Amino acid sequence: MGELPQDLRRVVEAIRPADPAALSAGRERQRSLTKPPGSLGVLEDVSVQLCGLAGSCPPPLPVPAAIAVFAGDHGVHAQGVTPWPQQVTALMVANFAAGGAAICVLADQAGAELVVVDIGVAGDLPAGPRADPTTDLPTGSPVVLNRRVRAGTADLSVEPAMSRAEAQQALRVGVEVADHLIDRGARCLLTGDMGIANTTASAALIAAFAGAEPAAVTGRGTGVDEATHAHKIEVVRAGLALHREVVGRVGRDPVGVLAALGGLEHAGLAGFVLAAAARRVPVILDGVIAGAAALVAQALAPEVVAACIAGHRSAEPGHLAALTQLGLRPLVDLDLRLGEGSGAVLALPLVVSAARILRDMATFADAGIQQ
Amino acid sequence: MGELPQDLRRVVEAIRPADPAALSAGRERQRSLTKPPGSLGVLEDVSVQLCGLAGSCPPPLPVPAAIAVFAGDHGVHAQGVTPWPQQVTALMVANFAAGGAAICVLADQAGAELVVVDIGVAGDLPAGPRADPTTDLPTGSPVVLNRRVRAGTADLSVEPAMSRAEAQQALRVGVEVADHLIDRGARCLLTGDMGIANTTASAALIAAFAGAEPAAVTGRGTGVDEATHAHKIEVVRAGLALHREVVGRVGRDPVGVLAALGGLEHAGLAGFVLAAAARRVPVILDGVIAGAAALVAQALAPEVVAACIAGHRSAEPGHLAALTQLGLRPLVDLDLRLGEGSGAVLALPLVVSAARILRDMATFADAGIQQ
Repeated sequence: MGELPQDLRRVVEAIRPADPAALSAGRERQRSLTKPPGSLGVLEDVSVQLCGLAGSCPPPLPVPAAIAVFAGDHGVHAQGVTPWPQQVTALMVANFAAGGAAICVLADQAGAELVVVDIGVAGDLPAGPRADPTTDLPTGSPVVLNRRVRAGTADLSVEPAMSRAEAQQALRVGVEVADHLIDRGARCLLTGDMGIANTTASAALIAAFAGAEPAAVTGRGTGVDEATHAHKIEVVRAGLALHREVVGRVGRDPVGVLAALGGLEHAGLAGFVLAAAARRVPVILDGVIAGAAALVAQALAPEVVAACIAGHRSAEPGHLAALTQLGLRPLVDLDLRLGEGSGAVLALPLVVSAARILRDMATFADAGIQQ
Repeated sequence: MGELPQDLRRVVEAIRPADPAALSAGRERQRSLTKPPGSLGVLEDVSVQLCGLAGSCPPPLPVPAAIAVFAGDHGVHAQGVTPWPQQVTALMVANFAAGGAAICVLADQAGAELVVVDIGVAGDLPAGPRADPTTDLPTGSPVVLNRRVRAGTADLSVEPAMSRAEAQQALRVGVEVADHLIDRGARCLLTGDMGIANTTASAALIAAFAGAEPAAVTGRGTGVDEATHAHKIEVVRAGLALHREVVGRVGRDPVGVLAALGGLEHAGLAGFVLAAAARRVPVILDGVIAGAAALVAQALAPEVVAACIAGHRSAEPGHLAALTQLGLRPLVDLDLRLGEGSGAVLALPLVVSAARILRDMATFADAGIQQ
């Protein structure tokens, strides 16, 4: 971690473990509520986690919520790892801005604010609502925030995906976006992502950070055939072999591994998650892209997981490896494999419900029932 | 079915299969939306089911939603199948009325109206807000509607739990409640239940309707020790043996089996589910109690499942057997074992989201993306 610039080091050092007294108070209160002990299952665990993060029982409600979709392109697209053309990233960013994408509909339904961050799209974005890069974050939503660090990464299978300075800059963008959203009132952050070929970079990151075999963590993304899948595994393998030196130092130099293998949206998401944890605001992770980014954040600050809630379990095999390493149990399990933050935003009502249970239910004493 | 009274037969006969043209239109529209095909997983299936039920694509949104919690007591409680005293049913009904129970908090969070139906509580209910049994359903919520068919069932392991006439009357209560809620504007119904010892009656019903071994479908309910669990299995086995003649006719006389083994809340829920299907309104099932009741409804009208959505997967082993027989995949899987409708109401935002996706997302053509 010695190589982290001072501003990022300050974020990492602000991350503290869950408060043990608040965790105990949360567990104790769950036992006193008018229901059989443990009968709300995983929701009880989430409510206790929120206590530990906030340092209070009951915890503040995780509302309002805001979701940031980090969009970036990937040089490894050139290897033919997906049937989708790279231009789809920019077209989908325009679709976000127009309100037509799944995440727009789901965020609206869940009452979450949506911000889209162009952290590294390769092509020109079609005209549309866009925030002025020189001003603060916009108040309307969805808008596209121009924070492009570079126009897509380089091909991780033939050179480092980005420089260390670019990775640090993208981490900073994530921190900045999280801080702005929290400053403007968000009490729960959600991760979103868009980037054609980003499941390939995710697989490479997960293989490196979880010490997993490429074949075990490389999936079919949004739908590739068997031959492309086999090729995708070989591309991930080639990337890991090329960067084996830095991958061998993964514990000591997570940012180096992020720069070698990751995407700009992974870096942005890692910064976003770290800043949420530093501010003690819960962050609901989407799928495999967020899981890969959270592994980077965990390597920088192990206690970051106290703030992380796994929104859903993706159909991508690498996601399970990431969740296992993070020690997180996913809330929603509906064979989703879209990305964009869809699995995180669908989990939001569950997280709010968990907090409301702890705040609003009667105790056995209130109801005159002997335990 | 020949023995069904005319009013109930009319409900059963109104239940029709899903509309094939609307199912096709739903699938077709899913393929045209700006996302990889199938990437919203189970939500896509739910959205298509809603099309088939409504006979239109996109389907109407399943809002506003209303949940009815049917409360009843069980004579089999005398066999010592649970550590909870029977009075807890009435105390919990009072807790519902006071707004202190989990379902009150969860329904409020989900924006669902809550109605509690005393269909067969054994003891006096504590004083509190209560609807006049002679008037229409109340508009406030939560209130307790007095529709008590009898003060708890008889012990299914020594005699029929109720008479055929009582089972029919309880089915009618369920139909009436569903019809009133729909008449007052509900476009999605959710099932809830309360009744100490009702997992024992559920296990007996599931064993009978799914042809399962008592040991395979009898669980620990809201928490019994190993000895009590073994005893509970023997009690279910004794009930099935005692009523083996009617159980042997389960396909031809589902109401007879319901009367022999079920609870008043099972009968109410079966009527509620049948009426929802007859009105082509989706009904989100809670856990094992609702699953057992839905098996009764399915035996009376196989097409009822076109209206049924499994809200969650309960930790009770019998629930899986019921869902398998119903052909339903649960949406939420969080180790819940509370009942009250908690698993149904937590699934509501997922069902609404599924419908909104189909209604509100842009198509590839809209977004100028070539498929």
